[in-house]
Amino acid sequence: MIDDDWIDGVAWNSDGLVPAVAQDAASGEVLMLAWMNRESLRRTVESGEAVYWSRSRQSLWKKGETSGHLQRVLEVRLDCDADAILLRVESVQGIACHTGRRRCFFSRLEGAAGSRRWVATEAPVAAGDASDG
Amino acid sequence: MIDDDWIDGVAWNSDGLVPAVAQDAASGEVLMLAWMNRESLRRTVESGEAVYWSRSRQSLWKKGETSGHLQRVLEVRLDCDADAILLRVESVQGIACHTGRRRCFFSRLEGAAGSRRWVATEAPVAAGDASDG
Repeated sequence: MIDDDWIDGVAWNSDGLVPAVAQDAASGEVLMLAWMNRESLRRTVESGEAVYWSRSRQSLWKKGETSGHLQRVLEVRLDCDADAILLRVESVQGIACHTGRRRCFFSRLEGAAGSRRWVATEAPVAAGDASDG
Repeated sequence: MIDDDWIDGVAWNSDGLVPAVAQDAASGEVLMLAWMNRESLRRTVESGEAVYWSRSRQSLWKKGETSGHLQRVLEVRLDCDADAILLRVESVQGIACHTGRRRCFFSRLEGAAGSRRWVATEAPVAAGDASDG
């Protein structure tokens, strides 16, 4: 028997996707936002390691498959509208971003009105891997 | 002079939107995921309080306008692909969800294969406000 009720409980969008936020379970840092389809969510839950859907490549994307920067999934949460997922993860080697940074949200808006700009607030800690982003 | 370069730095999707994650600046808790268009991001930055775009109502939605549960925005971050935003916020009265809960991600996936289900792990701490979600 295929147990799909919980997957049907997700409000997949018209493309069959939902955004998934990965949060570091230890530091609380928000690491990245990626997308999942039904199959990626199923594989994530069954394997305990994050599998996303690459919209650019139109294929399943096991996080860290090429880079080694896997995400072990400790908890899967769903929001009140069932259209966003939150993963609490252990980020293997502490790197979630394909640029080699700890997290993808490394740019911060700085400056006053008239001179606002996005500024990278942290440097890569490892080599990048374009195929893992 | 209108300073729009930083807004043009965001990779708006074909609907002119990006997902925005709100994280509690004090606790680190991920509170909610909502959507922004250019105008909502501009108003958020100028006012210092979160303004989203309601896809269901197709209108700007100042968080807490009816409920009082405003979000004071301490920091705005952008991810490596420029297609997701992270807000670090102070959640006024500690309630981000329209159901009256601290956060929208109150459902957790529980159970083993064959009996998985989404379980609400926390109860509302205030009255709900359907117009603020």
